[in-house]
Amino acid sequence: MTAVDFTAFVERLADLASATILPFFRTSLGSKDKNVGGMFDPVTEADHAAEAALRRVIQDTFPNHGIIGEEFGSIRADADYVWVLDPIDGTKSFIAGLPTWGVLIGLLHRGRPTYGVMVQPFTRERFIGDGESAIWRGFGPDHKWTERKLSARICDDLGQATIITTSPLLFQPEKLEAFRRVEARARLSRYGGDCYAFAMLAAGHADCVVESGLQMYDIAALIPIIEGAGGIVTTWDGGSATGGGDIVACGGAGLHGQVLDLLRGD
Amino acid sequence: MTAVDFTAFVERLADLASATILPFFRTSLGSKDKNVGGMFDPVTEADHAAEAALRRVIQDTFPNHGIIGEEFGSIRADADYVWVLDPIDGTKSFIAGLPTWGVLIGLLHRGRPTYGVMVQPFTRERFIGDGESAIWRGFGPDHKWTERKLSARICDDLGQATIITTSPLLFQPEKLEAFRRVEARARLSRYGGDCYAFAMLAAGHADCVVESGLQMYDIAALIPIIEGAGGIVTTWDGGSATGGGDIVACGGAGLHGQVLDLLRGD
Repeated sequence: MTAVDFTAFVERLADLASATILPFFRTSLGSKDKNVGGMFDPVTEADHAAEAALRRVIQDTFPNHGIIGEEFGSIRADADYVWVLDPIDGTKSFIAGLPTWGVLIGLLHRGRPTYGVMVQPFTRERFIGDGESAIWRGFGPDHKWTERKLSARICDDLGQATIITTSPLLFQPEKLEAFRRVEARARLSRYGGDCYAFAMLAAGHADCVVESGLQMYDIAALIPIIEGAGGIVTTWDGGSATGGGDIVACGGAGLHGQVLDLLRGD
Repeated sequence: MTAVDFTAFVERLADLASATILPFFRTSLGSKDKNVGGMFDPVTEADHAAEAALRRVIQDTFPNHGIIGEEFGSIRADADYVWVLDPIDGTKSFIAGLPTWGVLIGLLHRGRPTYGVMVQPFTRERFIGDGESAIWRGFGPDHKWTERKLSARICDDLGQATIITTSPLLFQPEKLEAFRRVEARARLSRYGGDCYAFAMLAAGHADCVVESGLQMYDIAALIPIIEGAGGIVTTWDGGSATGGGDIVACGGAGLHGQVLDLLRGD
């Protein structure tokens, strides 16, 4: 946990983002309407409305904190505490009505991700981590509200691993070649996911997530969740994932080393 | 609607399948355990348990009806009424913890799909159709139980269309080439989905779903939902989709024609 306990405040942000975004989900107009000038684009509307609402509450509550957001840029990015916001990570899934998108709210303390939450408003799930531990909250098989510890799965053999990437179409050609080297050796490869894929890694359902060209706001909130669940997340060359870029997350160090070697072409 | 109203009975089957499968979702053991002989495989266990339970209820209630199931084969497949069951369509998503899988329960009357339901037990959604109309039931933005009419979206221009396929890895090489011709002209291509993709088409969030090598039990239950929502679903050469194979579904006839032409290579 950070020096200050932001738990309750982050819950408030998560509630606000969910309430703002959910009415826009699955409300896309027919494609015919999309050619009209000044078109209504539900995902952009929801993205803007949610980030504006989050920024307002953060600035009112913590006027000295910085904010880095997907939609409205950065303020006080060198402050001790900086919030990193991506109101809808997975806009293409959102557009297609699939529930594999999420709201990302992260908190940096002196440049280091110390707290993060991934909210899926439609399934009403929250994945929350502080780098030391991580929890999932949602509805269990009995449809009752449940909270449980997130724990990444240890798989030391890529041949036994489930890997996820959002889409091979998002890789540049030489990056795609590197990804294909990993994919070819994995037991099971699944596409689609965005932040939901990293959440499934933290929950122990997937062993490896490989992405390319992420922004800081795509990953910063997820780092304390993944690490809090015992997982490892770095750039493809093993550096800090905080700034985004080409990112690989694994449940354990053995698999992470194997995957880095393959991505490098060793 | 069919001559006999099976609505209440299908709801009972859907409840039973959900209750049987959901306790197995997101319970995968660590990969280390998977090398042990006689391993516990949650998706196989859930698949078997659910289909066995459904078959038992169907046979007890309608002893003259036929059943075609993914797990336990066919009985009385030439009966007037034949149930077509796929307890977990989207096993790879199930394994990876993603909620984009579903239970498919379809009913053929004299060989024609006349009633179908797709159940997503985790999100508690149901997509139900009888070829004339189709509905969605689930939780709305206010988290209240909601029912609404499903209506496919009319998009006559592939350049404006959102298309979905489960995974390009599932296509044979020449089929992949055909799919790529469609994908290259679409506005947005999304991977992952299985039955959930067809459900999103029926709900008007996606314009086209292209799949290859489907089995009858992968598609039979979805046909009355897609058609009930006003959509079109056929094989790639425009034939009946009932038997499975290479399948394409579109929100409207204009787009369907364009996509068939591209798949053929015209």
